[in-house]
Amino acid sequence: MTDLHQGPVQPTPTAKTTLLPVPLDGVAFAPDGFFGGWQRRNATGTLPHCIDQLGTHGALDNLRLVTGEKTGEFRNFWFADSDVHKTLEAAAWQLTSDPNDERLLAFVDTTAALLAKAQGDDGYLNSYYTVVKPELRWQELHYSHEMYCAGHLIQAAVAAARAGVGAELVAVARRVADLLVDHFGAPDGPTPLDGHPGVETALVELYRVTGHRPYLDLARRMVDVRGNGLLDGAHFGHAYLQDHVPVRDADAVAGHVVRQLYLLAGVVDVAVETGDDELFDAARRLWEDAFGSKTYITGAQGSRHRDEAFGDPYELPADRAYGETCAAIASVQWNWRMLLATGEARYADEMERALYNAVAGSTSLDGKHFFYSNPLHLRTGHDGSDEDAPSQRLPWYRCACCPPNLARLVASLHGYTATTDDSGLQVHLYSAGTVRAEVDGAAVEVVTRTEYPWDGRVELTVTGSAPFTLALRVPGWCAEPSVLVDGVPVDVTPDGGYVRLHRDWSAGVTVTLDLAMPVRVVTAHPRVDAVRGCVALARGPLVYCVEQADLPADVVLEDVRIDPAAAVVETDLPAVPVTLTAHGTVVPPGGDDLYRTDMPEHDATPLSLTAIPYFLWGNRAPGPMRVWIPTATTG
Amino acid sequence: MTDLHQGPVQPTPTAKTTLLPVPLDGVAFAPDGFFGGWQRRNATGTLPHCIDQLGTHGALDNLRLVTGEKTGEFRNFWFADSDVHKTLEAAAWQLTSDPNDERLLAFVDTTAALLAKAQGDDGYLNSYYTVVKPELRWQELHYSHEMYCAGHLIQAAVAAARAGVGAELVAVARRVADLLVDHFGAPDGPTPLDGHPGVETALVELYRVTGHRPYLDLARRMVDVRGNGLLDGAHFGHAYLQDHVPVRDADAVAGHVVRQLYLLAGVVDVAVETGDDELFDAARRLWEDAFGSKTYITGAQGSRHRDEAFGDPYELPADRAYGETCAAIASVQWNWRMLLATGEARYADEMERALYNAVAGSTSLDGKHFFYSNPLHLRTGHDGSDEDAPSQRLPWYRCACCPPNLARLVASLHGYTATTDDSGLQVHLYSAGTVRAEVDGAAVEVVTRTEYPWDGRVELTVTGSAPFTLALRVPGWCAEPSVLVDGVPVDVTPDGGYVRLHRDWSAGVTVTLDLAMPVRVVTAHPRVDAVRGCVALARGPLVYCVEQADLPADVVLEDVRIDPAAAVVETDLPAVPVTLTAHGTVVPPGGDDLYRTDMPEHDATPLSLTAIPYFLWGNRAPGPMRVWIPTATTG
Repeated sequence: MTDLHQGPVQPTPTAKTTLLPVPLDGVAFAPDGFFGGWQRRNATGTLPHCIDQLGTHGALDNLRLVTGEKTGEFRNFWFADSDVHKTLEAAAWQLTSDPNDERLLAFVDTTAALLAKAQGDDGYLNSYYTVVKPELRWQELHYSHEMYCAGHLIQAAVAAARAGVGAELVAVARRVADLLVDHFGAPDGPTPLDGHPGVETALVELYRVTGHRPYLDLARRMVDVRGNGLLDGAHFGHAYLQDHVPVRDADAVAGHVVRQLYLLAGVVDVAVETGDDELFDAARRLWEDAFGSKTYITGAQGSRHRDEAFGDPYELPADRAYGETCAAIASVQWNWRMLLATGEARYADEMERALYNAVAGSTSLDGKHFFYSNPLHLRTGHDGSDEDAPSQRLPWYRCACCPPNLARLVASLHGYTATTDDSGLQVHLYSAGTVRAEVDGAAVEVVTRTEYPWDGRVELTVTGSAPFTLALRVPGWCAEPSVLVDGVPVDVTPDGGYVRLHRDWSAGVTVTLDLAMPVRVVTAHPRVDAVRGCVALARGPLVYCVEQADLPADVVLEDVRIDPAAAVVETDLPAVPVTLTAHGTVVPPGGDDLYRTDMPEHDATPLSLTAIPYFLWGNRAPGPMRVWIPTATTG
Repeated sequence: MTDLHQGPVQPTPTAKTTLLPVPLDGVAFAPDGFFGGWQRRNATGTLPHCIDQLGTHGALDNLRLVTGEKTGEFRNFWFADSDVHKTLEAAAWQLTSDPNDERLLAFVDTTAALLAKAQGDDGYLNSYYTVVKPELRWQELHYSHEMYCAGHLIQAAVAAARAGVGAELVAVARRVADLLVDHFGAPDGPTPLDGHPGVETALVELYRVTGHRPYLDLARRMVDVRGNGLLDGAHFGHAYLQDHVPVRDADAVAGHVVRQLYLLAGVVDVAVETGDDELFDAARRLWEDAFGSKTYITGAQGSRHRDEAFGDPYELPADRAYGETCAAIASVQWNWRMLLATGEARYADEMERALYNAVAGSTSLDGKHFFYSNPLHLRTGHDGSDEDAPSQRLPWYRCACCPPNLARLVASLHGYTATTDDSGLQVHLYSAGTVRAEVDGAAVEVVTRTEYPWDGRVELTVTGSAPFTLALRVPGWCAEPSVLVDGVPVDVTPDGGYVRLHRDWSAGVTVTLDLAMPVRVVTAHPRVDAVRGCVALARGPLVYCVEQADLPADVVLEDVRIDPAAAVVETDLPAVPVTLTAHGTVVPPGGDDLYRTDMPEHDATPLSLTAIPYFLWGNRAPGPMRVWIPTATTG
């Protein structure tokens, strides 16, 4: 067993953390499992597509403007370098699974060489500011995304270093990081504050790879100086820039969602590496706010298109859900850090919710079309002509942050599933495959067979002999877990969200975890006005939706009602996806009047209502969709 | 009787129109009536405040940069000239009521002189482009608002011409209009298309004042070239710019609401002056769409903060209602034109809805604080720190379009209330006061006494003798109108929304129209998901709301429920405002879980629920408010 290839987030031995990730080499998803299939599609579809688009849409050419290999205009957004960097990160993670992929190796090497050539003698590397605004370098940090781009470059280099590829990329990124330290590291120097956070977690991760303490110190300083209104907030306001309140004093997530979540990932990294409990408590407090009143049932976050922002508490419109794909990815990243720090299952619950719904739903079945925003209701009559809220997934976006972000997450997804501590192995997310880890000096291997998320039965076979605690997460949605060990029922009450099996394991012992997943009829907190009188169907980790494609052509989706008390029928395995059939009715609106004082008689027509997993929506003809279905009693 | 002072929108004798407005001199609101009081507050509060703010916030100084009277930077938005122009328009209308107001006369004269001095030799007048971007004059029309600003200047001049003041202002505006004709009037010249419509209606009105046909021809051409994607839509898209579909082909209102509505006002003006039925039919079609599925119960329009846009059909969130004040004003302007063209009461219904709710609600009791967006729900926990969605009215805005727009509308409000045709006099909006008009050569006067909108009883006394038809609008909300003539019941069935009294009137005859206004419990079309399971209270033209200020401090507004079947008690006149008391309950949310599968027992506590007119909200301590109240049965 090797642990050479560490994955995303690898706390140092002195970090104040509870769990440590199993290295990437330690987890292999079976290709026919849910996660394995997703990773394969990412490797053959999404990642090559992203590499192609970097060429097509000018992101690489922008760098060639710097090197003189091209002439012309800078193209697309001023932070387009970050798309290159995220794609590099994805390639680096992918190379830990496919070490001989020549195209990926060539992409990493040639792109790293291009970056090296584009880098200034002092280490500065940003194609937009070098080409378009050289005189304004570091001068408009509220807007420039210079550190944001540097952060993504550094994260790519961290991935390359852990994957053992792209030595030149690592060197380039270190020069960038060293420039940041030189320029912003002195307490009496310029304030290290970028309008778009992200560099904080990158610097901590680079510290973890290199042991070079100034990176951590700078990240910590970045967290501490933020929130005092030092950035120019004239256009978007300080909350958008995450500069309205110091993190330590904040009690509500606010402003631009991706910026808030990237910042919080960095906050946790800084907190655990510096043992800063006050800072970590702020992250906990903000988590309570975010997941207590500002998260969609799909795990999406961001209620407002305007300024891509969190809303007020319980402001969660289904139709205008923004739910940016990058926000759901950032939520996974933040929750993973919270999970490592605390070992608490609720963070894994939120990872699972986001992964199987908001994140999975952002990508088409071919892996090459994407949603940027992820609504829970596409209205009948929706004008989908705008890239901001299209009716179907698009192959690329002017602001192309999401696709390469997906590529890097999915390429490293196996790094987010299992952990160890001194006592044993913890499995947080289930998928068919193998987990190998070292526990207290002993090699441990568990082989998992499961149809999860379609079926709640998870068989785990321990293939070696060693004493350790196997901790299996019982998702928050599962009311009735059961466990057999070699077929014998074990009476186990979940402890902090985990079934913990303390054993001196011998090879071949099989644990059967059965996570009963009856269809759940879910309501929202009654302060969520947007879905009053509605229910959502869920089964296991999956949220379901109703699509126009499954309705008679003459039925308007908004006229459909559901009987929440009637039984919902599931299709049987092995056919997947599992779809649901519920008792519905069609209730015409009773006239055209927009406002009325009479209550017209509803002439309801029975309807057999098919629901499909939310993440699969929009893979047929574009059309209306909704997660929250009005009940028959609410008009 | 004089008809010197015509008001806003004065079709020419050859226009294809049904009704003609009664000139401003013909309508006088009693100062103690609703409209009269509003106008007085506008004259003593809002208008002087706007004049002050033009000085304080730099709009006048921007013009002085052009003339050389000031040095420094251009301030605020690039279309800040339009705030000057709208204030001038308000002042001109106000001078028809207060002809000796020295401050207003001085403001008009000195500002007209400043504009004349700032105007180029060729007639060009725009402080931003003259000072900041002289080389880009007319070069970035998707963005520049140059014609928009010109349009507001022309509208000010139209008001001045009709008011008989500001001769220099009229001359300046004609030079601007002539430059537009010279520069854009030739079919082979530059395309006359501004990203922000508004100039179209201004040019038609200037044609009406001057009889100069090229203004009308240019306006018509502007309408016809629009919708072909000729403007640069890279940033906002063509719908935002009203350039996505030709008006004649459009079947749905879309994009930026104010731009759409200003355009439609101009479309109607062009259609009636050119007898273009196809174009008018397009306006009708778009009206059906706007008022059938995209209008709030308050008359506000604009469901999205992002891009200040209309939403999809039935997308009408209460909490994130944008409902820009200028949109409600534009709706009044558009509906007035539709009413004049057709004589159909539904347009007056929508004027009334908007005026008494969205428009009236935008201004504070002191007349000096304003909402830009007009939500129907301010959530508990709302972050009101952003000018975009503040928790209370603000004295001014960076984008200051709304306050002077209010000033000009309210100063001319009496011009929007009564009309004549060959047969008689039509009264569309009721307020205490006097209407004098000429019908078929005879002078007609009607004196109105009423407490409307607090009471539905309207007494109209005819003070002269003449044969004519007195048509009195029966609002769409009134199910039971009754009419007495000199105390004798008249059996009148409303005809097209009007009670029509054909008589040879003699002096002193009194008509008593009684518009019964019981409290109405209103529901929305069931496709309006945002307010499912909720009702709104309305009485007469007024929509009501519940404010935190009337709840116990420990009650969260979102936990309040109403019993829609129980009687609602009204306070008695003469005390105003009339407030309502309904049977309510407080239902705690049954735990903190954002999503749940159990239905907790609701421990409801009875609550006497006070509702106040929506337009009065936010005049006490800032706090939560809602128009739509969940019913007790919907959780």
